[in-house]
Amino acid sequence: MRIIGIDPGTLFTGYGIIDFKNNEIKHVVSGVIKIQAFKEQAKRLEVIYSEINSIIKKYKPQEFALETAFYGKNVQSTLKIGYARGVSMLVAIHNKLPMKEYSPREVKKAVVGNGAASKDQVQFMIKKLLCLNNSKIKFDETDALAVAVCHAFKITSPTKRSKTWKEFVEDNPEKIWG
Amino acid sequence: MRIIGIDPGTLFTGYGIIDFKNNEIKHVVSGVIKIQAFKEQAKRLEVIYSEINSIIKKYKPQEFALETAFYGKNVQSTLKIGYARGVSMLVAIHNKLPMKEYSPREVKKAVVGNGAASKDQVQFMIKKLLCLNNSKIKFDETDALAVAVCHAFKITSPTKRSKTWKEFVEDNPEKIWG
Repeated sequence: MRIIGIDPGTLFTGYGIIDFKNNEIKHVVSGVIKIQAFKEQAKRLEVIYSEINSIIKKYKPQEFALETAFYGKNVQSTLKIGYARGVSMLVAIHNKLPMKEYSPREVKKAVVGNGAASKDQVQFMIKKLLCLNNSKIKFDETDALAVAVCHAFKITSPTKRSKTWKEFVEDNPEKIWG
Repeated sequence: MRIIGIDPGTLFTGYGIIDFKNNEIKHVVSGVIKIQAFKEQAKRLEVIYSEINSIIKKYKPQEFALETAFYGKNVQSTLKIGYARGVSMLVAIHNKLPMKEYSPREVKKAVVGNGAASKDQVQFMIKKLLCLNNSKIKFDETDALAVAVCHAFKITSPTKRSKTWKEFVEDNPEKIWG
């Protein structure tokens, strides 16, 4: 399965695509959409929409994972994060991609095991997981990849519980001795 | 000139189109996009985008005026207003319409003459101005029409000041006696 992760911001929007198959994760592509160069807010949103749209058309991910901004420094920055997130959601739905949102805490917990982990720790783990050890990579990029990885972990983690002993034996043959 | 005004909200998004020519204002169409019926946030944004887009394609306004949400009751509602506004801006830019934002205070001041006017006062004045006296009309609709009317007043109000007596005489022939 191919997953795109998006970390929408007011100056930079990070994106990262991974392939996830048989519990193996591979890095496909990642980067940062620089929107700070455009003064006009509507133009910035157009760039976010068109760039994410082009990336989806090119790499054809099957699922879309979005980091939920918790809040901005003030009302104005919260609104601006809202614009970027709203437009990102719209790209997902225009491309008919199933979308899931994750809070920064959920992402950190899934990737590093600690919901209060630092950006450095997330970056370190993402580099390890995706074999990007020697690459120069930005926080917005690793954050976006982390959302994608978080989604991969969430959709494959076993939520089903065996109800009877028979089901348990069928689900866990390696745990039966003799 | 034909102007569309949009008042983006989290449950309802109002729209209103007016024609403005030779200081006369005429009501073209107005209404409310009901988005509360859709639970999923992304679906709501898709509905806002597609409805405003259809209205623009049908009535072909030349300018786009947007009410700036001041703030929501809390961070979550501020973010959601941000989503709706971001998507509205995107429709404007995708349709290559010049866009201008107005705060609720600016709109009220332009329409009623008082930046602290109530929704009732705005509705009363919009009904008078657009000859909608007998129509049942919602606040979201009159608010959207009010943004359009505000834009019409702003773009036609004289901002140029005559610099010399010669320019003043040329600009104001009716003020010269004899």
